[in-house]
Amino acid sequence: MNTVTNKKAIKGGEFLIRESEANEIFTPEEFSEEQVMMAQATKDFIDTEITPNAKKIDGHDWELVENIFKKAGELGLLGISVPEEKGGLGMSFNTSMLIADVFGEAGSFSTTYGAHTGIGTLPIMYYGTDAQKDKYLPLLATGEWAAAYALTEPDAGSDANSGKTKAVLSEDGSHYLLTGQKMWISNAGFADLFIVFAKIEDDKNHTAFIVEKSFGGITMNEEEEKLGIKGSSTRQVFFTDCKVPAENMLSERGNGFKIAVNILNIGRAKLGAGVLGGCRAVINHSTTYAKERKQFKQPIANFGAIKQKLAQMSTKTYVIESMCYRAGQNIEDHTEELLVGGMDEAKAKLKGVEQFAIECAILKVFGSEVLDFCVDEAVQVYGGMGFSAEAPVERAYRDARISRIYEGTNEINRMLLVGMMIKRAMKGELDIVSPAMDVAKELTSVPSFETIDTSVLFNVEKDILKRLKKAALMVAGRAVQVFEAKINDQQEILMNVADMLIQIYAAESAILRTEKMVEEKGEEACKHQINISKVFIREAAEVVATSGREAIGGIAKGDEQKVMLMGLKRFTKYDLENVHELRRELADEIIEKESYPFFVV
Amino acid sequence: MNTVTNKKAIKGGEFLIRESEANEIFTPEEFSEEQVMMAQATKDFIDTEITPNAKKIDGHDWELVENIFKKAGELGLLGISVPEEKGGLGMSFNTSMLIADVFGEAGSFSTTYGAHTGIGTLPIMYYGTDAQKDKYLPLLATGEWAAAYALTEPDAGSDANSGKTKAVLSEDGSHYLLTGQKMWISNAGFADLFIVFAKIEDDKNHTAFIVEKSFGGITMNEEEEKLGIKGSSTRQVFFTDCKVPAENMLSERGNGFKIAVNILNIGRAKLGAGVLGGCRAVINHSTTYAKERKQFKQPIANFGAIKQKLAQMSTKTYVIESMCYRAGQNIEDHTEELLVGGMDEAKAKLKGVEQFAIECAILKVFGSEVLDFCVDEAVQVYGGMGFSAEAPVERAYRDARISRIYEGTNEINRMLLVGMMIKRAMKGELDIVSPAMDVAKELTSVPSFETIDTSVLFNVEKDILKRLKKAALMVAGRAVQVFEAKINDQQEILMNVADMLIQIYAAESAILRTEKMVEEKGEEACKHQINISKVFIREAAEVVATSGREAIGGIAKGDEQKVMLMGLKRFTKYDLENVHELRRELADEIIEKESYPFFVV
Ligand SMILES: Cc1cc2nc3c(=O)[nH]c(=O)nc-3n(C[C@H](O)[C@H](O)[C@H](O)COP(=O)(O)OP(=O)(O)OC[C@H]3O[C@@H](n4cnc5c(N)ncnc54)[C@H](O)[C@@H]3O)c2cc1C
Ligand SMILES: Cc1cc2nc3c(=O)[nH]c(=O)nc-3n(C[C@H](O)[C@H](O)[C@H](O)COP(=O)(O)OP(=O)(O)OC[C@H]3O[C@@H](n4cnc5c(N)ncnc54)[C@H](O)[C@@H]3O)c2cc1C
Repeated sequence: MNTVTNKKAIKGGEFLIRESEANEIFTPEEFSEEQVMMAQATKDFIDTEITPNAKKIDGHDWELVENIFKKAGELGLLGISVPEEKGGLGMSFNTSMLIADVFGEAGSFSTTYGAHTGIGTLPIMYYGTDAQKDKYLPLLATGEWAAAYALTEPDAGSDANSGKTKAVLSEDGSHYLLTGQKMWISNAGFADLFIVFAKIEDDKNHTAFIVEKSFGGITMNEEEEKLGIKGSSTRQVFFTDCKVPAENMLSERGNGFKIAVNILNIGRAKLGAGVLGGCRAVINHSTTYAKERKQFKQPIANFGAIKQKLAQMSTKTYVIESMCYRAGQNIEDHTEELLVGGMDEAKAKLKGVEQFAIECAILKVFGSEVLDFCVDEAVQVYGGMGFSAEAPVERAYRDARISRIYEGTNEINRMLLVGMMIKRAMKGELDIVSPAMDVAKELTSVPSFETIDTSVLFNVEKDILKRLKKAALMVAGRAVQVFEAKINDQQEILMNVADMLIQIYAAESAILRTEKMVEEKGEEACKHQINISKVFIREAAEVVATSGREAIGGIAKGDEQKVMLMGLKRFTKYDLENVHELRRELADEIIEKESYPFFVV
Repeated sequence: MNTVTNKKAIKGGEFLIRESEANEIFTPEEFSEEQVMMAQATKDFIDTEITPNAKKIDGHDWELVENIFKKAGELGLLGISVPEEKGGLGMSFNTSMLIADVFGEAGSFSTTYGAHTGIGTLPIMYYGTDAQKDKYLPLLATGEWAAAYALTEPDAGSDANSGKTKAVLSEDGSHYLLTGQKMWISNAGFADLFIVFAKIEDDKNHTAFIVEKSFGGITMNEEEEKLGIKGSSTRQVFFTDCKVPAENMLSERGNGFKIAVNILNIGRAKLGAGVLGGCRAVINHSTTYAKERKQFKQPIANFGAIKQKLAQMSTKTYVIESMCYRAGQNIEDHTEELLVGGMDEAKAKLKGVEQFAIECAILKVFGSEVLDFCVDEAVQVYGGMGFSAEAPVERAYRDARISRIYEGTNEINRMLLVGMMIKRAMKGELDIVSPAMDVAKELTSVPSFETIDTSVLFNVEKDILKRLKKAALMVAGRAVQVFEAKINDQQEILMNVADMLIQIYAAESAILRTEKMVEEKGEEACKHQINISKVFIREAAEVVATSGREAIGGIAKGDEQKVMLMGLKRFTKYDLENVHELRRELADEIIEKESYPFFVV
């Protein structure tokens, strides 16, 4: 089913310094029949249960939402990742990415689904005792119970560990009394179980608890009125001497923040995938609309301005698709490796994700921004109609906006991912220092112009890619040298570097996916994917160049700046393609198929 | 009051080929006391009547909306542009821009206001007979009556002239019977008067009519459910044998499309200004929020990531401000010139705007995109709270989205403005051909590196500007040569060129405004404005370079492409500034003042 070779060698963040090969990455084209069937079943579920009810769901018909939730449970969709012996389907990480992807079309319910199966269920799965798992996982996997995750507080959002909720142990040691206020809690309205983070005494770090609604001492505000995902329950939750049995502590005292961070890593990867269904849906809607809507005596789909939109939406979607399943499989493979090495399952799964925490943040940021791009262009394709609540894209526009905010804002994620990269370099976990030094040396030496055999597919693009990596290494390397420990105060530079890294991972994933596909099917069958890969790396080069220049302006002065700028210019140069033409060809394919044409379902 | 010299010489679109000087442009700093007082009165009106009622207005409390409308009328705000003898205040074009600007903060009511005072009133003012003006303008100027404008139909949006509404003359010639369906009609719910476009017999072009609600034969659908501006009435309007006296025809038979186009020009300029109040409001909200909201033990306003947002929002706002009042005054001056030349008033006003139709489209596109940028970043500054309907930025986010759609979509406007530029060049109205040929020659000659006296303020930036213009001339000139009459099918290239022109006009307006201010107040007093101008031209150079490369890929191949690329590189080069640092300084000023600091009210 899966032709990824060389699994062992790949580390998280290593894409920056490794010339990855097509056979090292997994592509969505390689999903097994079982996986595709599961995706199809999910899509069918959405088409029958959710899409026709979208207005009602958003109109706060919570009974309906609960019914849909139960049905999803009956179909097994809530237990994708939960082991079979605990009532789930025990499917792989990448399968769970795939199902999150398909659920992305479901708007509000996508959040309901994500909160329950992700942050609601996984803490127990990964950190629970056997007894906790036995007791709760079957209830959650089947949808008998709904779960919520209560970390954020009015004064503790991005700084999640600063929450003030308290857990006080009873004198007899039998239970904790939880008191505090949580905010923005998804699924709160109908959750039977809450993962709650609270502080014991003057602990620096949170401790996590499994709290049943039935424990009492839990009250709630009304539903928040929100911009979008109006059919996802979001409430403030108050715990007042909520009595939690001592055995419902999750993991150890003070381990809560670590749990939160690790679960967030998974959440970010899933969010990256979870935008995909939404992207494809608005591409499909826009395409249909553009074919039907006539102005100036012809379908607006005939116009270059519209074709460009359809092509750009699809290009970005193809790219994030490529990234998600590449990273997803890396996580799975690394987990497998750790299991083979003897690590226990929960720990191996966590470590598998942690290894690729940089990629998880990349997926989150890039994915949520692709989604925002797609919904925005979709509204524009609809013209005035896009502003009407009757149009599916209007809701999509509102729903999409949350993705850049939760699971850590995109700003926090950008800074975080560069921070992690630097930390790993410093620790020697990733050998970034010597390639960065090589690039620095290259700057002052005579440039060697290798000739590239342009007749080989993607040789040109891989050369660009290689140089974009050098650009990032040059900028990041010098920034660390100049600012040393104070680099964290240079948030703008960190964000510039993040943008460079994101584009590199994105472009590489698309190229390698396409290359792998071409090996299977030949160039002719993959011409649109080839076009996409060619256009995207050029767009990426523009972003890398612009971000690089901004960063260099903040890092270097005088002669040193000149040298870096010359390097940047060399590293971000590329031969033009007629991207307009390539986009039109791609758009024609989308218009003919009347849908995003590169996905398995 | 107004120190613009050299008025005569300036033509619309000429910015591309003219080295404009600071003393040729009007800046918002030069508004008269009277104008500032008027702006202040408007702001007070919004603060007392609209902002506290924003929720009710959006909740479809139409009685309240009508009351506010009447009050605006009593204050004279609905008659800003209407001559005094017709019950208005008879103020200048740029004053009407200023009031539209301030109203931009008012969300839904901003559209109500714009539809009434702009597309609702101006057709009568500019095209009405004396009798029509005497009868209707006093009613409209005072707000006794509300006006709507009914051009769009279900099948005629961007292609407005293709509408199917019919006007049939009665046998006795006394009246027309109007029959047809109009869509997306702002103010429809409470309008007393409609400007209606309809076709007589098999005419190619529309004819416009002044239709009183009381004429009968007018029915409506329910209010449209919309993404934003929910407190602006928008309905479908049906005319069924609506009996319109023959004397209520506006202008001549078949002149309707021309009226529509000319009124749209004004609407576009006003929309450019009309985003400003909205931009400033969300900057102010975000700043206040960022100062109050603490995470990681400090106000989030301390973080570079947040400072960057506040600075970028303010930079773009400053730029569009500079553009609007520059163009506004150009229009006013040109009108004055025509009046002095003996043209009648209405015609002179129309011709004044028409001359700057390119700039009007630029203001519309750039302004609406700046607004979208600002509301989006404002939501992001608020984090989770930005997704809550309790936050003022949530509504702003939804309201903003319409601006890129109406008054011609931004795509249509982009193509239009380049089309107009080309047409004027072809007609010899603008001497673009010879500068374009000069640039083409320059490409193949040895580059002459002039040394610039960098000690003089903005010498460096003006040099960049000069080169950016060359870049645009090179690309546009070659595109026209290659595609000739078929250039209109190359929508993507037209849009690339539009982006180049827009950035050039934007950057130049900011630089010249700042320069003029510096002459008055000295550099120290204007240091933030200087920073803004320096940062923005560099951002503009990036956009011009990227758009230029895309366009060149679609225009030229082989050696010619190489030559153009080398030219583009030379034309878009710039010396780096530490933009991070400059943005932080600017942000600190905004944070200290807790508001956008560069406006008159
Ligand atoms: C619809 C919705 C559902 C949610 N569901 C859940 C849920 O189920 N469970 C749960 O626990 N939480 C949930 N959340 C909370 C969500 O995770 C937080 O909103 C998010 O982490 C951001 O925190 P905040 O809203 O407090 O923003 P803040 O942390 O106040 O951020 C405001 C701004 O400041 C910036 N900022 C903050 N710190 C820094 C820094 N150090 N440097 C630079 N910039 C900084 C941010 O990037 C942002 O731009 C939900 C939120 C929403 C809106
Ligand atoms: C809230 C609201 C208020 C409004 N108020 C009024 C009002 O008071 N009076 C009034 O008369 N109208 C009003 N309108 C209508 C508005 O002017 C139109 O919506 C607008 O002109 C776009 O037309 P459309 O919606 O039919 O979109 P379409 O013309 O169908 O456009 C759909 C898409 O096709 C693109 N497109 C169309 N033609 C071309 C082409 N030749 N080349 C490339 N791309 C093309 C557009 O750019 C857009 O992306 C309002 C609309 C809204 C939403």
